[in-house]
Amino acid sequence: MPSPTTHLLAIDWGTSSLRGAQLAPDGAVLQERAFERGILTIRPGEFPVVFESCFGDWMAPGTLCLIAGMAGSQQGWLEAPYCPCPAGFADIAARLVWVDHAGPGRIAIVPGLNTESDGIPDVMRGEETQVFGALAQLGLLDALFVLPGTHSKWVTVKGSRIVQFSSWMTGEFYALLRWHSILARTLPLGATPHDDAAFKQGVTRALRGEGLLHTAFGTRTLALFTRMEPPALASYLSGLVIGEELRGQQLRAGSHVIVIGAPALAARYQQALDLLGVTCRTLDENATWAGLRAIADTLAPV
Amino acid sequence: MPSPTTHLLAIDWGTSSLRGAQLAPDGAVLQERAFERGILTIRPGEFPVVFESCFGDWMAPGTLCLIAGMAGSQQGWLEAPYCPCPAGFADIAARLVWVDHAGPGRIAIVPGLNTESDGIPDVMRGEETQVFGALAQLGLLDALFVLPGTHSKWVTVKGSRIVQFSSWMTGEFYALLRWHSILARTLPLGATPHDDAAFKQGVTRALRGEGLLHTAFGTRTLALFTRMEPPALASYLSGLVIGEELRGQQLRAGSHVIVIGAPALAARYQQALDLLGVTCRTLDENATWAGLRAIADTLAPV
Repeated sequence: MPSPTTHLLAIDWGTSSLRGAQLAPDGAVLQERAFERGILTIRPGEFPVVFESCFGDWMAPGTLCLIAGMAGSQQGWLEAPYCPCPAGFADIAARLVWVDHAGPGRIAIVPGLNTESDGIPDVMRGEETQVFGALAQLGLLDALFVLPGTHSKWVTVKGSRIVQFSSWMTGEFYALLRWHSILARTLPLGATPHDDAAFKQGVTRALRGEGLLHTAFGTRTLALFTRMEPPALASYLSGLVIGEELRGQQLRAGSHVIVIGAPALAARYQQALDLLGVTCRTLDENATWAGLRAIADTLAPV
Repeated sequence: MPSPTTHLLAIDWGTSSLRGAQLAPDGAVLQERAFERGILTIRPGEFPVVFESCFGDWMAPGTLCLIAGMAGSQQGWLEAPYCPCPAGFADIAARLVWVDHAGPGRIAIVPGLNTESDGIPDVMRGEETQVFGALAQLGLLDALFVLPGTHSKWVTVKGSRIVQFSSWMTGEFYALLRWHSILARTLPLGATPHDDAAFKQGVTRALRGEGLLHTAFGTRTLALFTRMEPPALASYLSGLVIGEELRGQQLRAGSHVIVIGAPALAARYQQALDLLGVTCRTLDENATWAGLRAIADTLAPV
């Protein structure tokens, strides 16, 4: 008989998506499912029903389910109060919030982290689990991470603890500019393939430091004067926003960053970091599973 | 009998609004009209009909009508090719584009300007007329102007010529963030009164230089941790975007800026410039009328 914690159901319940995996004791992914049921699609009180419909058949007596992400926010299933930074793996593992669950097995939500810089708070939910998962996978004590996305996170780890982090609305700015600003009238109506040269041109432009309020307008004027072909403009704009995010980090040439994200997006960050002379390695979002597996391993079997 | 050019109909036909004024020979505004018929609301070929319905009764034999703004763009009534910078008043006055007009009087469109910086073009249409109008009103040869708005323009004048300018998507970024981003879920549903303290806090925050991708997220977290009351958040965000625009100008304390814009918006820029130790004077958008009056005065009567 495997110990009860071998039945781990790992869930990443974010703002716009819901993913789950059955994990073996060694962390191997046995099965995965994904649903377009991010917390924004779920009405208050509806979380247990949605959980049951998506993962109920994976729950059994002895099953442990751990949930990371926005499901622990005020608008989520059950609020898991933020852990203040600096925070280590043991801090979040010790502050799981247990869901009062009618069916078989146990369900807990992993808390997010909060920090503060110059009097302004910052928060994350889900990325802390990816970071601790990555640290475990890579055997690292100190590292600088970026987790690109709608709201990218830059995370500094020292001595295995997250000592500071910051949020960057890069993905959201890109989407607003690409689809809802005046630039949408200039850019092609649908998606276009990634254009390396235009992307790098955008990054380089952003790194000069004039700021996105100005550089974004250039996407329009480059088209107006036919200096760039319309299919390349979206990649140029992507380079502008990602370059702007990198500019804000004040990275030194020769430093090293770990990028955790979907492969296509991580590859863009790698291209942009190259231009700064910053080395990186990339991990996919399954770092979440590694983080949840590690938390499960700290719990006593029931 | 007054000379024919005394019958001046001055029109500012922009992206989102259409304004017209009857001007006396001394530039005094005799009558004004405004319509929500910016060029975005007008289908190709419909410009003559819209013009006739809005201003037809003001046109008579001998009337001169001068139009500044986006009506001269590719999507406008008739394209008036850009004048390259540096450009003086005489350059735009000499490059009017005459509309083939069936009714009484004459109609011409004032060209916009284009420039280039580090290989990226920039353009404006309408602001050049305001700047030349302001120079005439104030008797200045050299000045730095800001014309705040959806796409703010910063314009450098030396020896009565516009030598350089740049566009900043400040108003559009504010609207996107305020009404269409995740911040819209945190901010009050409707408009809120301007909050001086929150606005200045936003400007100060922006001037630190971390960049709007990061600082904008703080609007959300300040609310999340109840560090700022919801009615103040929109002013804080306004301070962030205007502060970001000012940061990009690298203004020295003690320098002087002329702000041309609607009084409420110009007052915000004045507040923000104060924080940088930059002095300013403000002019309202009727600088357009002064500019068009001055152009009319260069034309021979018919």
